[in-house]
Amino acid sequence: MKVSLCQINPTVGAIERNMDLIMKWYQKAVAAGAELTVFPELVLVGYPPQDLLLRRRFLDKAEMALKSIAEKTTIPMIIGNPMRENGELYNCAFVCGHGEITGHYKKRLLPTYDVFDEDRYFTSGDSTEVIEVKFENKSVKIGMQICEDLWDEDYACNLVKSLKEKGAECIVNISASPYRVGRLADRSKLIASKVAETALPFFYCNMVGAQDELIFDGQSLAYDGKRNLIGQGPAFEEDIVLVDLENPVPIKLKTVQREQKIYHALVLGVRDYFRKTGYKKAVLGLSGGIDSSLTGCIAVDALGPNNVHGVSMPSRYSSDHSRDDAKTLAKNLGIDYRTISIESIIGEFDESLQESFNGSETGVAEENIQARVRGSLLMALSNKFNWLVLSTGNKTELAMGYCTLYGDMNGGLSVISDLSKTDVYALSRWVNKEAGSERIPINSIEKPPSAELRPNQVDPFDYDVVSPLVSALIEDEKSPIELIAEGADPELIKDISRRIRINEYKRRQAAPGLRVTSKAFGIGRRVPIVNQFDELNHD
Amino acid sequence: MKVSLCQINPTVGAIERNMDLIMKWYQKAVAAGAELTVFPELVLVGYPPQDLLLRRRFLDKAEMALKSIAEKTTIPMIIGNPMRENGELYNCAFVCGHGEITGHYKKRLLPTYDVFDEDRYFTSGDSTEVIEVKFENKSVKIGMQICEDLWDEDYACNLVKSLKEKGAECIVNISASPYRVGRLADRSKLIASKVAETALPFFYCNMVGAQDELIFDGQSLAYDGKRNLIGQGPAFEEDIVLVDLENPVPIKLKTVQREQKIYHALVLGVRDYFRKTGYKKAVLGLSGGIDSSLTGCIAVDALGPNNVHGVSMPSRYSSDHSRDDAKTLAKNLGIDYRTISIESIIGEFDESLQESFNGSETGVAEENIQARVRGSLLMALSNKFNWLVLSTGNKTELAMGYCTLYGDMNGGLSVISDLSKTDVYALSRWVNKEAGSERIPINSIEKPPSAELRPNQVDPFDYDVVSPLVSALIEDEKSPIELIAEGADPELIKDISRRIRINEYKRRQAAPGLRVTSKAFGIGRRVPIVNQFDELNHD
Repeated sequence: MKVSLCQINPTVGAIERNMDLIMKWYQKAVAAGAELTVFPELVLVGYPPQDLLLRRRFLDKAEMALKSIAEKTTIPMIIGNPMRENGELYNCAFVCGHGEITGHYKKRLLPTYDVFDEDRYFTSGDSTEVIEVKFENKSVKIGMQICEDLWDEDYACNLVKSLKEKGAECIVNISASPYRVGRLADRSKLIASKVAETALPFFYCNMVGAQDELIFDGQSLAYDGKRNLIGQGPAFEEDIVLVDLENPVPIKLKTVQREQKIYHALVLGVRDYFRKTGYKKAVLGLSGGIDSSLTGCIAVDALGPNNVHGVSMPSRYSSDHSRDDAKTLAKNLGIDYRTISIESIIGEFDESLQESFNGSETGVAEENIQARVRGSLLMALSNKFNWLVLSTGNKTELAMGYCTLYGDMNGGLSVISDLSKTDVYALSRWVNKEAGSERIPINSIEKPPSAELRPNQVDPFDYDVVSPLVSALIEDEKSPIELIAEGADPELIKDISRRIRINEYKRRQAAPGLRVTSKAFGIGRRVPIVNQFDELNHD
Repeated sequence: MKVSLCQINPTVGAIERNMDLIMKWYQKAVAAGAELTVFPELVLVGYPPQDLLLRRRFLDKAEMALKSIAEKTTIPMIIGNPMRENGELYNCAFVCGHGEITGHYKKRLLPTYDVFDEDRYFTSGDSTEVIEVKFENKSVKIGMQICEDLWDEDYACNLVKSLKEKGAECIVNISASPYRVGRLADRSKLIASKVAETALPFFYCNMVGAQDELIFDGQSLAYDGKRNLIGQGPAFEEDIVLVDLENPVPIKLKTVQREQKIYHALVLGVRDYFRKTGYKKAVLGLSGGIDSSLTGCIAVDALGPNNVHGVSMPSRYSSDHSRDDAKTLAKNLGIDYRTISIESIIGEFDESLQESFNGSETGVAEENIQARVRGSLLMALSNKFNWLVLSTGNKTELAMGYCTLYGDMNGGLSVISDLSKTDVYALSRWVNKEAGSERIPINSIEKPPSAELRPNQVDPFDYDVVSPLVSALIEDEKSPIELIAEGADPELIKDISRRIRINEYKRRQAAPGLRVTSKAFGIGRRVPIVNQFDELNHD
């Protein structure tokens, strides 16, 4: 049996275009000699469709589209789509072929944690299904799975065992599994263990493409019954993985460096956000600092240098080296670059507020005005030329609240908001290594980070210490007490956890940010703004 | 049996303070002669605790606090708290008394729709529970319910019937049910039907207070077994409802005018957001328009006139009557009022952007600069004086995207973002009627709405037509095709539904807004930003 895993990139809600995309790849697969084609979970409607699933006409359209696809099929296809039955909605895998829908399976395990809300929409199927698929001169019994069904250990059940008992000759899992660091290793290890348990070939077909905060990585996998990997789809690209079960060719799992993987994830995240919202061009502020430099590189690799506009917005506190570094970066990237001084605007703000401020000491209010003037200038260019503003803040800053709401937080998309400051450095060094040159000026990497909002300011954190602690609190979900027990400075932990808590209000108004870790700020982390829980203090 | 329903106002995460609050009201109830005290759902931790429920130490603390409360009890208490058992988490009602915990019930129906995410955290209990509670010389079998359990018809089950069969002599439901227009009528009707079915007395105890976007209204209800209402708690206030089942005194359901109810909800929403986040003072821009005028009234009634600061920020496009109206309003409200002209700052923005804008026609970019300068001025005052900015946009505007991100959308809390423009008018007229004077200048109510961002501008919508259509699309969840079938102008519907869809990105970055309808923008409405579904167009 020749199986093609079609890892494609649909757009949420674009049902007709998704249908065309599916048919295009189906025909490619047929032309390449496939006998069975497999498409991802909910591929016709895009993932996650969220509350669109509550609209009757959305479901009508999805069902009609599936019927229309089925009518056009020759060889069998497995494809994900929602299905209504007796007033309930199911997340289904359909088997189509020879012009009709011949079977379906209802997803059993519905993820309702982190970024997933499937219980909000779907009813859980109550049985495993083995569907017999007929080919020209044979038939194969396929054990059906959808995404989370693979992770059955977390639900204290064993779905592959049940499929095997029901006579499955292979397992097909259709997924919409978002990327995060280390995900390929998790999946391949788990699938290999299922193969070891059942001695059944396993085909895992995963979606590609970015949708709001999520980036689907593809990286589909095929194993023969002897636990040999026999097919692997590329990361972050549409493609077909074609494998021949009768003549399997074992391969080695291809892995790439962590920094490279994250970088390519973010490039796809930016590219898809623009493409799927219809934007062509981006604008971002270039301060000469490392965050905006890395964001600029990603934007150029996603959109091309002609579609990225860099703006330097110096004040009296901007150092010469910062301006030089920003200019050098823009030159290296080959992008449009302009300078708009904020001095005179700041002067008028100061003047206008003089009476209200009444001789008070200069502080955060004045610093934030600078950030907000810059944010407003970028938005003015955005409104005038239809450029989308990219926000350049990193995760450590966002955690600590070291960022200005309606200022440097402005943007339609936050590119590196799920990268710790440590990762920002690591990716920047990787960029230069990959380029074989100082694409990002080495000075931007090596100088002490500074917001340059007052004379001789430097960021008030030792990022080498703070950044990993923030990651431990957010991504590893460690508690402050645990970290102190592990040797962290109690006062520092108290300060960090307090800052994370009281700055929730800023993050609630942040631009959507591309997720690359196990826990990003955004839809997967739901913490109240009004929140008096502090385990280190009595309330 | 004398039952006291203690409808109190906890704060999410403030477990120790909530414990003190519970004991304070418990003692009041005991002093008033209660034999059984009832407290709301999850009252010790506050509702909704969201992802705090994923933290082990949060649950540790909640469990310890419950134990400590139980130890202090004399007469029986029913109280809501989370409970861990065999690796699962349950939303429970505990029965305490005479120094110990004597029983518990695990919530069966877990709402996972709209603003609710209970499946994300809790496992569903698998049986109804009747708990026998002992008093001095008698005992009563109580049929236990938690909030959603009341709405069993939506889940095709009948929990009260099962409780009756198990010998329940009365039903107690502890709730954290957020306010929305018409909710009291829904609840009282449903409870009366349950009483009719079982002939059992029914005690419904609901939480009071605001938490982020949600406003809990209290309005606890008590019915005797003959379907007589015998107790009703006030709306939006902490109180005890004390009823004597042996000597029931039938009362009539007290209802108030829709506008009054909504207004009081919003007053509590503002007051609690400030109190629970520690803010004392508010600042808002007063344009002379009806939205900021109504918001100003609510702020003053929530915080007192000494804690509200009004700022007029005129430009060359601001009419004399607008400035006069704003000034009159501030005088009527008795609040601090200042004028900061934005003209000179705008001039510097124009100058700084001249080269980039390169003689292009004046348009949205220039209009938004005005809104953003105003937003930045308010934030400067906020940063300097620790005043919290109130956002004044209404729901119709937010739906249509007729608002400026990082401009008039700025704010820590959006006060009237769940009021349609129609409701803004209705509440404003009610405010004046209630005051017996033109608290809101009549001119603000009667003049054509205008953003005054260019000469002779008026809002480009007929709100009498558009506002109800937006409500039909969002709150009634009607589809565009349905509305057209009902006679709405197809072009207008097409325009409105398109605007709602493409402005999702703005609302994603909006301040949290107080919810008063069945469907607010915010956590209860989860629509993708990248969304190509338009039922009126082929994608």
